[in-house]
Amino acid sequence: MKRGEYASRGPVPQEVISAKEFELPSLGEGQVLIEVLASPINPSDVLTLTGEYGMLPPLPAVGGNEGVGRVATLGPQTDAWAIGELVLLPIGSGTWTTHMVADAQRLIALPPQGDPLQLSMLSVNPPTALLMLREFVDLQPGDWVIQNAANSAVGGYLVQIAASRGLKTVNIVRRKSAVDAVKASGAEHVLVDGDDLHERVAELTSGAKIRLGIDAVGGMASERLARCLGQAGTMVNYGGMSGEPCMLSPATFVFRDLHLRGFWLAQWFRTATPEKQFAVFRELALQVAQGELKARIQATYGIDQIRDAVAAAAGDERDGKIVLEPNKG
Amino acid sequence: MKRGEYASRGPVPQEVISAKEFELPSLGEGQVLIEVLASPINPSDVLTLTGEYGMLPPLPAVGGNEGVGRVATLGPQTDAWAIGELVLLPIGSGTWTTHMVADAQRLIALPPQGDPLQLSMLSVNPPTALLMLREFVDLQPGDWVIQNAANSAVGGYLVQIAASRGLKTVNIVRRKSAVDAVKASGAEHVLVDGDDLHERVAELTSGAKIRLGIDAVGGMASERLARCLGQAGTMVNYGGMSGEPCMLSPATFVFRDLHLRGFWLAQWFRTATPEKQFAVFRELALQVAQGELKARIQATYGIDQIRDAVAAAAGDERDGKIVLEPNKG
Repeated sequence: MKRGEYASRGPVPQEVISAKEFELPSLGEGQVLIEVLASPINPSDVLTLTGEYGMLPPLPAVGGNEGVGRVATLGPQTDAWAIGELVLLPIGSGTWTTHMVADAQRLIALPPQGDPLQLSMLSVNPPTALLMLREFVDLQPGDWVIQNAANSAVGGYLVQIAASRGLKTVNIVRRKSAVDAVKASGAEHVLVDGDDLHERVAELTSGAKIRLGIDAVGGMASERLARCLGQAGTMVNYGGMSGEPCMLSPATFVFRDLHLRGFWLAQWFRTATPEKQFAVFRELALQVAQGELKARIQATYGIDQIRDAVAAAAGDERDGKIVLEPNKG
Repeated sequence: MKRGEYASRGPVPQEVISAKEFELPSLGEGQVLIEVLASPINPSDVLTLTGEYGMLPPLPAVGGNEGVGRVATLGPQTDAWAIGELVLLPIGSGTWTTHMVADAQRLIALPPQGDPLQLSMLSVNPPTALLMLREFVDLQPGDWVIQNAANSAVGGYLVQIAASRGLKTVNIVRRKSAVDAVKASGAEHVLVDGDDLHERVAELTSGAKIRLGIDAVGGMASERLARCLGQAGTMVNYGGMSGEPCMLSPATFVFRDLHLRGFWLAQWFRTATPEKQFAVFRELALQVAQGELKARIQATYGIDQIRDAVAAAAGDERDGKIVLEPNKG
């Protein structure tokens, strides 16, 4: 049994974490032992290791916030479950581990035919994309949405979820080499960011009013995105990949009455009812299991390569997700 | 008859404007001739001369958007008015002029005992301050509000209006030399901006949750102000005195669910009903006429000194408003 542990935080995330042997506790009432099949390394995981995230677990801690596994051993009073069942791990449970003991009532059963790698990314990025499309602006089929960081995992899910709802997306990337990958994930319209972005967008959309912009870059990329929005449009930020604060000129958002909001999934989890949360997961799990919703995967790593995996996830210029397969040789 | 005219726009506002002789048209039905007593030079006027404002009049144009005057001559069918009456000039009518012909029905009569200089600033800055306090967050007596650019005219009005509503204000200035002037305009709590601002504010307010922040500076001053706000607080920007875009780190406003909005009075005028607008002016005119609401005046200029006046208004480090008295010497 091994897991990725860290006892301190620091600016180079792969230096604070390492794979460590551990002993499993015995199974209590209502608990099951799970063999973890897959768990991704999300940007929020990296920020948790560097200490920049909005909430930080007490130290020492096990990394990882989501994943899938198979039920390996049943503890007392877990009759509703079967050995071998595919399950979603509880969110925030330290999922970078070969095995974990979990309260069975916190597990969500997954469609058995689903791809474990794709299902392991279900809990964080797809709901982020879905909720940003749904919670801020009442969009109707045919409406346009614009996003930057279109090459990110959230960006890819957003393209697919938007399309399934009849929304059209303008997808912005920072480098030309990313255009093909974004198109391959289903995006029809992909533009490379630049000072004339709003002009190229207006041409693309024939001047349609864009009411929702989604920013994960920050810096002047926020301003360039904001300039593409129509009067009283809303910009939602959910990340700062540029490492810079969002920049927004008063002229852009005062004269056009723009609204800037932030989206943080952890906050939504804190406030949405369990029924609402379950409905979101059920909708998304079905789409992922059926292959309608998927993310590109750049590489997978075993638990012994946890440092390489974190370094790859923290690096620039990825074209897909880094996923741990903890029990992989 | 002279007025401040410009036929082009440019980066040095005092260079595009000059005092020019003009001939008054004869009075039509329902029109009166007004002798202009006072008209301020607002930041929005300067941005109109440089071309940076959100709406620009066709050229050539007469500068100035607000002011007061006395009725000097009555045209046909203006029986409701009397020679010598003190009136508010129509907004946006080109008020940097010794005289103007106006439709009497667009005039608002003012309390005759009011100070024309103070009343001349009634239409733009006081409603900006009042509406920013009123339209975004439902504040209750005892609540805190924080603003930067506290040394501006809007900042001064905001202190006075907030106090009259039982709100407490934290007032931020950029330089120590401005503290006394802001205190003199009625502010109890004045802090000089800096990286530890949020800590000093928390100490001052004993950690009270601040739900409204008002920003007219931009740059990292926006971020420092945002850090003082409580969870789900709203920041309203109405200007960019630093010349930089507002900077807001994703960590500050995503993790704390802040809302960023812009306020533009011209937009409010376009959308608010005439009754609402009249109610705002009536409330404010009474307070100004009674001396409860006032702005510091740095200097007044005659129409022949229009270039000096604009240069003074556009300059840094003012401690009061620049007001034209067009008919002065």
